[in-house]
Amino acid sequence: MATIKDVAALAGVSLGTASRVLSGSSQTSPDSRARVTAAAKELNYIANGPARSLRRSRTDVLGLLVSDIRNPFFSELAHAAEREAQRRGYTVLLANADEDADQEAAYLRTFASQRIDGLLIAPQGSDVTPLHALRDGGLPLVFVDRSVEGLDVPTIGTDNEDGVRRALTWLHGRGHREVAFVGGPPEVSTGRERRAAFLRFRDELGLSADPRLVAHGDFRAESGVEAMHAVLASGARPTAVLSADGLMTLGVARALREAGPVGADAAEPLDAVEIVSFDDLDWFSLVSPPISAVRNDATAIGRLGVTALVDVIEGRPGASHRVATSFVDRSGEPGGSAGSAEAGA
Amino acid sequence: MATIKDVAALAGVSLGTASRVLSGSSQTSPDSRARVTAAAKELNYIANGPARSLRRSRTDVLGLLVSDIRNPFFSELAHAAEREAQRRGYTVLLANADEDADQEAAYLRTFASQRIDGLLIAPQGSDVTPLHALRDGGLPLVFVDRSVEGLDVPTIGTDNEDGVRRALTWLHGRGHREVAFVGGPPEVSTGRERRAAFLRFRDELGLSADPRLVAHGDFRAESGVEAMHAVLASGARPTAVLSADGLMTLGVARALREAGPVGADAAEPLDAVEIVSFDDLDWFSLVSPPISAVRNDATAIGRLGVTALVDVIEGRPGASHRVATSFVDRSGEPGGSAGSAEAGA
Repeated sequence: MATIKDVAALAGVSLGTASRVLSGSSQTSPDSRARVTAAAKELNYIANGPARSLRRSRTDVLGLLVSDIRNPFFSELAHAAEREAQRRGYTVLLANADEDADQEAAYLRTFASQRIDGLLIAPQGSDVTPLHALRDGGLPLVFVDRSVEGLDVPTIGTDNEDGVRRALTWLHGRGHREVAFVGGPPEVSTGRERRAAFLRFRDELGLSADPRLVAHGDFRAESGVEAMHAVLASGARPTAVLSADGLMTLGVARALREAGPVGADAAEPLDAVEIVSFDDLDWFSLVSPPISAVRNDATAIGRLGVTALVDVIEGRPGASHRVATSFVDRSGEPGGSAGSAEAGA
Repeated sequence: MATIKDVAALAGVSLGTASRVLSGSSQTSPDSRARVTAAAKELNYIANGPARSLRRSRTDVLGLLVSDIRNPFFSELAHAAEREAQRRGYTVLLANADEDADQEAAYLRTFASQRIDGLLIAPQGSDVTPLHALRDGGLPLVFVDRSVEGLDVPTIGTDNEDGVRRALTWLHGRGHREVAFVGGPPEVSTGRERRAAFLRFRDELGLSADPRLVAHGDFRAESGVEAMHAVLASGARPTAVLSADGLMTLGVARALREAGPVGADAAEPLDAVEIVSFDDLDWFSLVSPPISAVRNDATAIGRLGVTALVDVIEGRPGASHRVATSFVDRSGEPGGSAGSAEAGA
């Protein structure tokens, strides 16, 4: 790999001049800037860290690559990140991987070509190669919500295990033993962690270990419909279902609606299937019965993500966090009737 | 304003050299690139159009400045824009004005500093100065959803008048005469257009002209809660309400819930207030009773917006469109019960 000495030699300037140009100093002549920049480009020179990087000339712009901009969890996270960034004098450019590893890779190339000071990313899968390239190129990185093995960067995630424990303990306390699980994709860290926690606490609490109760989707609504239909088609008769994110919960609710009177001539009608969601959405209190949920704190994750990223950009160590969840029990709330005042009775 | 001749003179190069540098040609020496770039900067030189612009070196990146990334209408629009952009070989960087004109101005500055080929924007208000500056700087612009007076750029909007007509005609057909309206902000074109259409068709259909039935918010949920509470506190007793966007509909539904048994000792209890929404959200079919809606086609707007922007970038005229709405009548659907199969009965 080319060093700054190689760049200075090829450009025919002193090491000090090359360093000043590459750190974005204005104390350089147009001629030396042109020579050093051309030499750095020719040698494919990339500085080792932000302090000595080509990116030293700060833009006060952060990148944020989310998994799915249509997922309310991520739009809330993006909004919180932007508020925190603004408070610290930065703006945020967003990109949407759309739950697709190829699209993620395309946006990593886009961000590499733009003038940003650092990148927050909720990674899609397990291929860390493009992330390594960015980090080695001196771009500060922070993981939000999700992480990948093999790259040591600050990570702001959710306490997935404890969130699933809260949900299953609550369902167990309400008498449920046949609890279905609609999990996320196993390629994604949050998908893996929530599934492992489901299996662990299912067994610890003595819930049914019927494998037909476990399905998974891709964290989007349509996959929740399909997963719930698959569970029902298997012949399993859950009395409750835990869905691993808010959009799949929408799908699960639709599937139970569509399934209609499946239970009418069956021993156990489905009209008592209780839904619990990992992620609390703003309309859960308006349906009948209201949907109880693990509150996955997108606002805190967005805020702490920006804090860690700005720390790294400014040369301080960035702190990792596991953000605590809480449980929103809506079992005591009156049901549905969006356009009705009877609910207040 | 400086011309390319001024730049060539100050840089001490020929007009042809200045032109090649400014159009991003690689057939130039580092020295002349440095001189011309410095001279252009000193003179604040901005090319007249994309064809002869500093931006000539294409990045295949589009910017999209939305009003509120937490509004499902805009996250859907962004998703559709991104799909269309991808199909045409572009990626999209998003920014969120958060329904705030100052934040919009900050992001316009951010985009001006980034390497994008064009910008889609849903403008916040009436100050077109920063937009003029961008356009005069040669950046292709297209308006999506909203527009501002005084800037002649392709505009992809919704047929707001016809959408409101559909909603009010439907409510009138169901016997409603006391119809409340929770409108958007008057600074925004969609807020103004939907309000004007409400007033027009209210009068044409002979609905109540009680001014206490008309309120407005800022297109976000909390403002819908406040506007609905204000209507109820005025003493007006609507039998239906039209909300001017999906997030305010969420707020209206909450407010009617919170209002509780306001009507218990009143002549007209509120338990029959029917909600209609301008914007159809994915959970409207899950509440009880289901919420009927004007379908505001964010997908078509995002797609046509990218089409027009790419046309302008590539030197073709960009076409404006008013996208048609449709009406989703859910009055015949079974009510609520998200976690229940009884709905299929």
